[in-house]
Amino acid sequence: MADQQARTSGDKRPTEIPAIRWEEPPEGPVLVLLDQTRLPAEEVELVCTDAAALVEAIRSLAVRGAPLLGIAGAYGVALAAARGFDVAEAARALEGARPTAVNLAVGVRRAEAAYQAALARTGDPTAGAVAALDAARVLHREDAEASARMAAHGLALLDELLPGGGHRILTHCNTGALVSGGEGTAFAVALSAHRAGRLRRLWVDETRPLLQGARLTAYEAARSGMAYSLLTDNAAGSLFAAGEVDAVLIGADRIAADGSVANKVGSYPLAVLARYHHVPFIVVAPVTTVDLDTPDGASIEVEQRAGFEVTEVMAPQVPVTGPGGGVPVAPLGTQAYNPAFDVTPPELVTAIVTEEGAVSPVTPEALAQMCAGPAAGAPPAVG
Amino acid sequence: MADQQARTSGDKRPTEIPAIRWEEPPEGPVLVLLDQTRLPAEEVELVCTDAAALVEAIRSLAVRGAPLLGIAGAYGVALAAARGFDVAEAARALEGARPTAVNLAVGVRRAEAAYQAALARTGDPTAGAVAALDAARVLHREDAEASARMAAHGLALLDELLPGGGHRILTHCNTGALVSGGEGTAFAVALSAHRAGRLRRLWVDETRPLLQGARLTAYEAARSGMAYSLLTDNAAGSLFAAGEVDAVLIGADRIAADGSVANKVGSYPLAVLARYHHVPFIVVAPVTTVDLDTPDGASIEVEQRAGFEVTEVMAPQVPVTGPGGGVPVAPLGTQAYNPAFDVTPPELVTAIVTEEGAVSPVTPEALAQMCAGPAAGAPPAVG
Repeated sequence: MADQQARTSGDKRPTEIPAIRWEEPPEGPVLVLLDQTRLPAEEVELVCTDAAALVEAIRSLAVRGAPLLGIAGAYGVALAAARGFDVAEAARALEGARPTAVNLAVGVRRAEAAYQAALARTGDPTAGAVAALDAARVLHREDAEASARMAAHGLALLDELLPGGGHRILTHCNTGALVSGGEGTAFAVALSAHRAGRLRRLWVDETRPLLQGARLTAYEAARSGMAYSLLTDNAAGSLFAAGEVDAVLIGADRIAADGSVANKVGSYPLAVLARYHHVPFIVVAPVTTVDLDTPDGASIEVEQRAGFEVTEVMAPQVPVTGPGGGVPVAPLGTQAYNPAFDVTPPELVTAIVTEEGAVSPVTPEALAQMCAGPAAGAPPAVG
Repeated sequence: MADQQARTSGDKRPTEIPAIRWEEPPEGPVLVLLDQTRLPAEEVELVCTDAAALVEAIRSLAVRGAPLLGIAGAYGVALAAARGFDVAEAARALEGARPTAVNLAVGVRRAEAAYQAALARTGDPTAGAVAALDAARVLHREDAEASARMAAHGLALLDELLPGGGHRILTHCNTGALVSGGEGTAFAVALSAHRAGRLRRLWVDETRPLLQGARLTAYEAARSGMAYSLLTDNAAGSLFAAGEVDAVLIGADRIAADGSVANKVGSYPLAVLARYHHVPFIVVAPVTTVDLDTPDGASIEVEQRAGFEVTEVMAPQVPVTGPGGGVPVAPLGTQAYNPAFDVTPPELVTAIVTEEGAVSPVTPEALAQMCAGPAAGAPPAVG
């Protein structure tokens, strides 16, 4: 890809590399991403000079995670505007890069709206570009602030639900600083518990097929110094049966108006296990993840991804041999069923935690009230 | 390992390679195994000339699967006897190679008892060796016959539970000809449904961490010509939620007297999902898998395996780079929780199918009656 260049991190320390940043070198503005497909083996940055490169980075999961996708989408619109491309066209391409993640579309539209408003006001595309970049930066900063508030609300909820302390938290996929302008969603709550001395262990689901748990959450857990153990997704059942899980904390890619939660495939089985074992199942996500235009779980479009993610094993160090770029493990010609997400109905969700507070029980009314914001009255928060 | 030699399959067709066979070349008897760690990429045979080599093959999962482990254990004793090694010592080593699989110990003890009886009768170790080999061969043949009977009972049960036909079966791990003297356990039932034109689709769980589903069940499904799809273990929840699973069929490594079923890790979450979705959860295993000396699930010793099975990706074609011989995917130093099995309580098991019939509901009394054999009265079978 001509417009996407790889940079290795050189002598930078790991913790100094943000998941996303805007740069303005002499040759024009660029969006620099930490390539998450290469972690934890290598810290490589991808430099995107146009929206098409960013779309490709989103599709390949070099940049991923609901809140970060919103930020990336907004910067992508700003990049198209700053470089004089067709902003509406770039916005549509970015929005469509991953259909399930609502934050992506929200971020894209916010920057696009800022661009259009400035253009309409001034007639000057440069002013539009500045406005779009401002909108992206505000979103980025807001997301960092939202992370901190989610962490506080989430920890308060945990302490309320589990008064004994010494929380053993099970999480799925990756929801830390790599997906956020701040410290993330579900992971930020666990991190907050860790800093408060109340996290006994983080159980990290490896999260097949792309191993975001093994590669990214374990990387973030190791960097934070918390006690953690990695497990195959299917070993979670044994942990529940042994009474080793006090709560499940996950993120969300889209929350419907009825409280149905689309998140990384494997979340729903955890919700069923949590219910069977009377363990709280807590979803942590920014308010932008709630999509009141999607009435229910059945209305959520679930992205089906390529079968080779399942039939081949991917690892950055592995030489390319299969049609999908990995090492084939299944017989050639094997079909795979590979939904990227699953949908957990609200009756299995103990609480939804956002920067505005926690909704529990999860009802359409409580969600709608929270989305209306603090101005609409006291948030229906328990945590 | 000096006593374990690899042979490639040369020009043999895949279907001609049995999972295990006894050979008597001029230099002495050997046990030849199809190395299941190399499938489906390569069909390589391992030649064991003593029990120690077989113990290593069992530990490394080159040979695996409950019924086949019993057969392998019996042949291992015969091999030790035929080559003049200490039979009791070999038997103890073989029994201990995988603690959860009861069939292994059953097979070992059967051949050892035959050896000891012949030795006591004749005073001649050669007669003991002949008797041990005969016992192994009888077990091998009985297992093939038991497979056929399990398949018939299992299909009858499926047809009874799912009168509509067009079964969509979800399975976990590998339970076909590779684990058996015949066509296997749960897979044999699916194969039987396929041959009868009543299998719409076999959903194959990939079965992390060692991918027995992706590597072995997909290989057996492809060879049999059935419609199958591979999925990550955590995607099974989406299939249940979509109403795409009519029944779950799994094998077992040990069944306690109360009907608790130890099987490959990931079975228990499927049982919980099946219960939540009102889908039959059926265990197919030979009677020897029932261990009346193990009173309940809590008494089943669950083997914990090395963490690198989770922290590294294994594939035969991948160059060795990590401490475990695979490619590291998690950060170095990551601890893993890696139980080989989990335990499903009887209340979540719809039926246990053996060569003697199907037990449903699963009660200690019905199991004990079945284990007493047909001579003890009509089997408590529904299928």
